[in-house]
Amino acid sequence: MIAGTSFVWDGAALQPDGVISALDRGVLFGDGIYETIRGYNGVLFQLEAHLDRMAQGLRVLQMPVEPTIAQVREALAQLEPLDQGQDLRLRVTVTRGVGGQPWELYQTTGPSIALQCRVLPRLCDILPKVGCSATISDVRRNETSPLSRIKSLNCLDNLLARSQAQAAGFDDVLFLNTADRVVEASTSNLFIVAGKAIFTPPVEEGLLPGITREVVMELAHVTQRPLIAEDLFQADEIFLTNSISEIVPLTHLDGNPIGTGDPGPVTASLYATYRKMTQGT
Amino acid sequence: MIAGTSFVWDGAALQPDGVISALDRGVLFGDGIYETIRGYNGVLFQLEAHLDRMAQGLRVLQMPVEPTIAQVREALAQLEPLDQGQDLRLRVTVTRGVGGQPWELYQTTGPSIALQCRVLPRLCDILPKVGCSATISDVRRNETSPLSRIKSLNCLDNLLARSQAQAAGFDDVLFLNTADRVVEASTSNLFIVAGKAIFTPPVEEGLLPGITREVVMELAHVTQRPLIAEDLFQADEIFLTNSISEIVPLTHLDGNPIGTGDPGPVTASLYATYRKMTQGT
Repeated sequence: MIAGTSFVWDGAALQPDGVISALDRGVLFGDGIYETIRGYNGVLFQLEAHLDRMAQGLRVLQMPVEPTIAQVREALAQLEPLDQGQDLRLRVTVTRGVGGQPWELYQTTGPSIALQCRVLPRLCDILPKVGCSATISDVRRNETSPLSRIKSLNCLDNLLARSQAQAAGFDDVLFLNTADRVVEASTSNLFIVAGKAIFTPPVEEGLLPGITREVVMELAHVTQRPLIAEDLFQADEIFLTNSISEIVPLTHLDGNPIGTGDPGPVTASLYATYRKMTQGT
Repeated sequence: MIAGTSFVWDGAALQPDGVISALDRGVLFGDGIYETIRGYNGVLFQLEAHLDRMAQGLRVLQMPVEPTIAQVREALAQLEPLDQGQDLRLRVTVTRGVGGQPWELYQTTGPSIALQCRVLPRLCDILPKVGCSATISDVRRNETSPLSRIKSLNCLDNLLARSQAQAAGFDDVLFLNTADRVVEASTSNLFIVAGKAIFTPPVEEGLLPGITREVVMELAHVTQRPLIAEDLFQADEIFLTNSISEIVPLTHLDGNPIGTGDPGPVTASLYATYRKMTQGT
């Protein structure tokens, strides 16, 4: 796999420097889904879980699960093997393709599949050690929308809120839902540590069922329950999870330290266990 | 202007059968905006109002208003003149282009601009006469998001809800916001007629400031005020407005007739006035 490359699957081969039609519904309406997968030392971590989630997204969008997932597998099989010793980020994008009135979901040419691969920035391995800060967004996550629970191409709320947070000096942004309950960060799920207990909001609150979230729930005893902002400020530790940056302590929220204000022991221990798992040891 | 064609602006000329990079943020994140403009007998109706709204969308997305709008004008100037006597639909799409981390809004190659042009389906001129039906969606419009007030490429909520409504036998779908108030239809603004009065919800409720909505407010005395679902069921008439289908009576809502259940006189009169305006008479 060559970092910095972008391919489009033409049905038989990967076309480098891929382009897609300006009429593709991915361009016109953000009509599609994606996955971002981290590759460790030549292996795509949790690939099957990512493809399962993609299948669930296809169902929500009323796109055919098969042959779409089979086509994604064919495309992935044609990537060069990952370089050993280099961690990479792979993005798989699937759009509905070309055709139909906006609300006509079935009259298209079939999906467009694009792959992008790049070397991970070093920051990804620093963040779990130093932690990050966040602010709570004024924009609510809309838990009434099925989009809140899939990884669709409708990403603008996340982009704009995180950009605004960074301009104000924060690393990331947290979202509440329309019922004032805590949901997730711009590209991560959220967990809190309170004493010996670990809590995370359930998917019904309007959040993406993260692959790393799932792994963490296998590695530790986690209780899913609705959380409010007050729970965050009173937590001993908070950590954010996603497939690329893994497990990152959230040490400051809206200027207030969480717990001691330093990365905490429960998060560090989980991160160490997770890292071993990714290294296949 | 040739119907059925799709162009991408390359900075100097319109490229037919246009393609854009699979790395374009329009594809990756739905990171861009669009306008759909109706052309009557060789003239794009309300072009300046559409470009003003596009400029407002660019500001919300923190994209440069200029030279982007100037580039759109250059691209439009290179379209063949519209055929006299044929009504066309023109879509202008502007994405943020290629580059940057998702939340880095300023590090791109500059916008991608695409134009699509097609002959209007005849249905567009039938709907104002026969009216349409709708159901109220379970998905709420998120008025806390700035996206609710611009024409961004994040269209999936509209597409999915309207498709679901059509599968259930309705023509369209209406959205309430998170405060249970009426907002708009999937691609139209909404007005109600109650006695001699006409009402429409204000933009702050979480709706697109429609160009046809604006024209209607110039043609008639309209009061902007929050509306609840009960106001809809008790209305004498309801009509939906957008640039393509113009002014369409909503005669049935969730199976209940609105007023008499036939297109009403206030809507018909407004439509007649609007049509004259579009024909330049």
